[in-house]
Amino acid sequence: MRFFSDNAAAACPEALAAIGEANRLDTAYDGDAWSRRLNAAFSALFEREVEALWVSTGTAANALALAALCPPHGRILCHRHAHIEIDECGAPEFYTGGAKLLLGDGEGAKLTGETVAALADSVRVGDVHQAQPAALSITNATEYGLVYTAAETAALGQRCSARGLRFHVDGARFANAVARLGCAPADLTWRAGVDALSFGFTKNGALSADALILFDGALAEATRYRRKRAGHLLSKGRYLAAQMLAMIEGDVWLRNARAANAAAARLAEAAGADRVIHVVEANEVFIRLTPAEDSALRAQRFDFYEWGPGEARLVTSWDSDPAHVDALAAAIRAL
Amino acid sequence: MRFFSDNAAAACPEALAAIGEANRLDTAYDGDAWSRRLNAAFSALFEREVEALWVSTGTAANALALAALCPPHGRILCHRHAHIEIDECGAPEFYTGGAKLLLGDGEGAKLTGETVAALADSVRVGDVHQAQPAALSITNATEYGLVYTAAETAALGQRCSARGLRFHVDGARFANAVARLGCAPADLTWRAGVDALSFGFTKNGALSADALILFDGALAEATRYRRKRAGHLLSKGRYLAAQMLAMIEGDVWLRNARAANAAAARLAEAAGADRVIHVVEANEVFIRLTPAEDSALRAQRFDFYEWGPGEARLVTSWDSDPAHVDALAAAIRAL
Amino acid sequence: MRFFSDNAAAACPEALAAIGEANRLDTAYDGDAWSRRLNAAFSALFEREVEALWVSTGTAANALALAALCPPHGRILCHRHAHIEIDECGAPEFYTGGAKLLLGDGEGAKLTGETVAALADSVRVGDVHQAQPAALSITNATEYGLVYTAAETAALGQRCSARGLRFHVDGARFANAVARLGCAPADLTWRAGVDALSFGFTKNGALSADALILFDGALAEATRYRRKRAGHLLSKGRYLAAQMLAMIEGDVWLRNARAANAAAARLAEAAGADRVIHVVEANEVFIRLTPAEDSALRAQRFDFYEWGPGEARLVTSWDSDPAHVDALAAAIRAL
Amino acid sequence: MRFFSDNAAAACPEALAAIGEANRLDTAYDGDAWSRRLNAAFSALFEREVEALWVSTGTAANALALAALCPPHGRILCHRHAHIEIDECGAPEFYTGGAKLLLGDGEGAKLTGETVAALADSVRVGDVHQAQPAALSITNATEYGLVYTAAETAALGQRCSARGLRFHVDGARFANAVARLGCAPADLTWRAGVDALSFGFTKNGALSADALILFDGALAEATRYRRKRAGHLLSKGRYLAAQMLAMIEGDVWLRNARAANAAAARLAEAAGADRVIHVVEANEVFIRLTPAEDSALRAQRFDFYEWGPGEARLVTSWDSDPAHVDALAAAIRAL
Repeated sequence: MRFFSDNAAAACPEALAAIGEANRLDTAYDGDAWSRRLNAAFSALFEREVEALWVSTGTAANALALAALCPPHGRILCHRHAHIEIDECGAPEFYTGGAKLLLGDGEGAKLTGETVAALADSVRVGDVHQAQPAALSITNATEYGLVYTAAETAALGQRCSARGLRFHVDGARFANAVARLGCAPADLTWRAGVDALSFGFTKNGALSADALILFDGALAEATRYRRKRAGHLLSKGRYLAAQMLAMIEGDVWLRNARAANAAAARLAEAAGADRVIHVVEANEVFIRLTPAEDSALRAQRFDFYEWGPGEARLVTSWDSDPAHVDALAAAIRAL
Repeated sequence: MRFFSDNAAAACPEALAAIGEANRLDTAYDGDAWSRRLNAAFSALFEREVEALWVSTGTAANALALAALCPPHGRILCHRHAHIEIDECGAPEFYTGGAKLLLGDGEGAKLTGETVAALADSVRVGDVHQAQPAALSITNATEYGLVYTAAETAALGQRCSARGLRFHVDGARFANAVARLGCAPADLTWRAGVDALSFGFTKNGALSADALILFDGALAEATRYRRKRAGHLLSKGRYLAAQMLAMIEGDVWLRNARAANAAAARLAEAAGADRVIHVVEANEVFIRLTPAEDSALRAQRFDFYEWGPGEARLVTSWDSDPAHVDALAAAIRAL
Repeated sequence: MRFFSDNAAAACPEALAAIGEANRLDTAYDGDAWSRRLNAAFSALFEREVEALWVSTGTAANALALAALCPPHGRILCHRHAHIEIDECGAPEFYTGGAKLLLGDGEGAKLTGETVAALADSVRVGDVHQAQPAALSITNATEYGLVYTAAETAALGQRCSARGLRFHVDGARFANAVARLGCAPADLTWRAGVDALSFGFTKNGALSADALILFDGALAEATRYRRKRAGHLLSKGRYLAAQMLAMIEGDVWLRNARAANAAAARLAEAAGADRVIHVVEANEVFIRLTPAEDSALRAQRFDFYEWGPGEARLVTSWDSDPAHVDALAAAIRAL
Repeated sequence: MRFFSDNAAAACPEALAAIGEANRLDTAYDGDAWSRRLNAAFSALFEREVEALWVSTGTAANALALAALCPPHGRILCHRHAHIEIDECGAPEFYTGGAKLLLGDGEGAKLTGETVAALADSVRVGDVHQAQPAALSITNATEYGLVYTAAETAALGQRCSARGLRFHVDGARFANAVARLGCAPADLTWRAGVDALSFGFTKNGALSADALILFDGALAEATRYRRKRAGHLLSKGRYLAAQMLAMIEGDVWLRNARAANAAAARLAEAAGADRVIHVVEANEVFIRLTPAEDSALRAQRFDFYEWGPGEARLVTSWDSDPAHVDALAAAIRAL
């Protein structure tokens, strides 16, 4: 029973159907009917004009966004446990041409305005010996399954504005954050001062399709060239566009995220406050497990990641089998 | 009636079925059952051990291959009309860290050993003021629809060996070349001294799936890291692997390529030697058309690229409708 | 007797004296009294406000200028024999993050407006598959010892303006061009639409000191960071600044260039129109020599570069010994 | 009275004389008589064959060394206060093509073997999501004026060897370390497993001349190309080579470093153990100063850097005026 990664989830029926639909002949690259509808579809979702570019991975979306927001001699502020620092093998450094990441701490992989200010203050302003802070990147929902509220995001946006920083959100699990908060996507992005969003669909039921949303249209032109030279302009990108359109329509993206969040909530409830390490606000549950408990769960065929000594990560997804969730909840209770 | 690009072709039934098959749950990134079978499947196809990495575009495969074969201070020899020079927006320069391309001429976008030698000779050997030749990259089938035979490839391989050059083949239409020549894939690659092959499936009926084949296993480790940091390690790459496996099985890749080649041959025959610009050996037909002739064809709803003044490019694909091919052949004859 | 390179010339007395002067204690990096005077000194020379940055090589000046003017996905138009293409081992590609050079032809390594237009036209406008033209770079005096007049430069500047190209001048021998033309430095630069100039002092009598002159002040800030991260912010840069100031004062730079030009003119006259390959307008003389003639000159201990079969390059410098020039002129006449 | 930086020191008489000497005509780039003697001179100094390349800054030497030792997808372990992290504006990231730095802690900017092991352990071995540790870089003498002994260096070298890491020493103040320890340069470098050394002459009395010493000859070829494309191959590099040769001869480099170290020792003694923050082993003295004490010293015209709140950095150099040192020592005692 799979609880180790939402990347291992299947593609949802709407995404698969869209692929079939896109298999009717059309033009290549992003000149097709589906890709041409993306800007409008995302603009409607975000209640303002945006530029939307499909890419096939979240790492590509993040790296392209950061290259648009930070010069080679700049610095990107992020959490010490941010995906862009921990799990992308230097993609931001590669795409930006060698910018530096500046790492901050915070419970649940969340940064506060104070931390952002302190990080920025740690660099000597205007001293050419030091790459200058150029952008802030946060992850919502975070790598530990917490969310930034609209107010928290706006507070960070104000810090960015005050410091001359551009603002990026890694939204590999943006759907889970929106589903949790019940707010408008705009509230977690441009209304809060966000310049670019990596909007993940892959973990949430698409086959391999993420969107890079640029709220500053001026960033789009250069980014389109960067996407091509990075090898991320798919000649058959219409299949990606079609999936996203299908998942936006009828709020499939929210339905999927709600299902994943609900499953995680049930696991968290079963585990109880003492065992849970981070507040569970999205689709990830981090719990304490003794080696014996870990073995006991695995013996019942539950599959999950060990996350440091005595810690485990349980990830639910849009297609988590309710019976499996029930079984795991019961098994955790029985520990 | 579509003759403008094989990138606009549909995904073939076997590829689509494989996607459905891969939609059963499995692990993420390239640890899944399908991805783990790629090395073996391609090793069987190439009659020796190879390392096979899926990527989602031919540009990514090319750029990763060239980064493996050429240092930042090196130079890649290629044809003036090579895709890596003309249509990749500087991807080789980006991935290699700023290597230079050295451009040669040759009929039909083919390079000869003499041209390669002359290009290499144009650089002062060992002079640090000049980026030194490090790799040769050819495209087979070429951008103009010609093929390099096994003997021609081996002759180039010998030049590479003599000059200390690594050897890359851009095989976006490798299937069309193999289908045309009827030789073993090995004869067009490692037996001829090729170090790395971009093996295209996308134009030949996959959804968005190409393979980077490394004949020198020592190149694989660094390339796996490069793929990740370029954002090309798909968390759901199993869908790519499954398509390729399905297309290798039962020689679907050859069947598809033969269909495309045959359609092109019929068009070429209809056009006749006087009208055809480049010998037609794969799935592209370049013909001379007066403006009036061009308009006449378009008026009959044939869709194709103008390729410079008075020239048109007709591209067939695995799914070219025989009725459309008949119609176009007849229309050309009738000009 | 040395005629092979002006890089082999000595440092002139004024430069050496300035080094001694700068050896009085002062602050480090570019916060010293000399460096702080550079902007004003060059602004006076160019009759408008400029930003002047010392660097220790012409390649560094060129590469920093091009990185300021061309994005990673852009293209730099230049002559096929430009130093940035031929003799910098990919420095522009390294500094820009992988931009491409687009090469044109023209007598004496000079480009015309028509060639620039044709080069720009060879790229499909707005097509993300092709790195777009972003900058023009010319060399004045050229690699073959010709000069661009103020009118020629302005004509190119107008092409740049019309095409949205930034404009760079590699002025490794800018002094020789100004000395030849007798015009204001402004006429060969910003008045003609030039954005950045690599102003060489090294070949003209400095120890190792060139200036990067930015006519667009907006380029300066990022360039200062780029200079540092390229390792070109010398902690003792005051010695570079002092040399330049000393050479600007009293027009030493012009005196030196005039001496070199005059020596070249005498050699050219001695060689005669039939033997001279390129019009001699600066301090380089390219002549035809049979192998026997070549040997005859070398037997008389004249040292110079062979420049392709049957061709030789003679370079004079600020300190060319008049007796040596006389001797070489006589020897050439005697051939 | 200057105690703020050894970069502000003058050039020593031997270096100036060498410049005069090199002003006799010779060939360009590194083909001159002086540059050709560097390998032999440094090989004698290090008691084994080495490759020595002049560059004009320590940042250039460091960045070239790291590019030789660490691939773009690798990671460089260093101290959190290392110059390569704090004061080079991302030069290592630029030259390596986007490698990451991994920061450790340690008193006096020194790393221990345990810290190096812990840093290496913090990365998941062989996981392509994480840039892998490739090199260790230490600074000797450190940024806080401490030295690594031969034994300490060798212990780190063994860790490197065990972990497959290459080993770099930033020796901007290598002379001060050797002068302090009285050991052979070899003991602090190749005998301890060091692959590359940035050997600083600039802070120690040269005009602008540092050496990159490669103990692994295989690194030299690529590095020579990298130096050129970084714009660090000076056409008049003979002036750099001449200075270094003059400072090696007669052990001028050691004499200079000893003078600086002795001056620092006198200041440290005057300050006393309570006021001194880091053990003083080279030419830097970090002391605690109240704002009133700071003002008192500055009122007596002593010039130095504030180094965080309540802390000051005093730097001595080869040419520190003994009278100034006496005066500062007395002034500190009188606080």
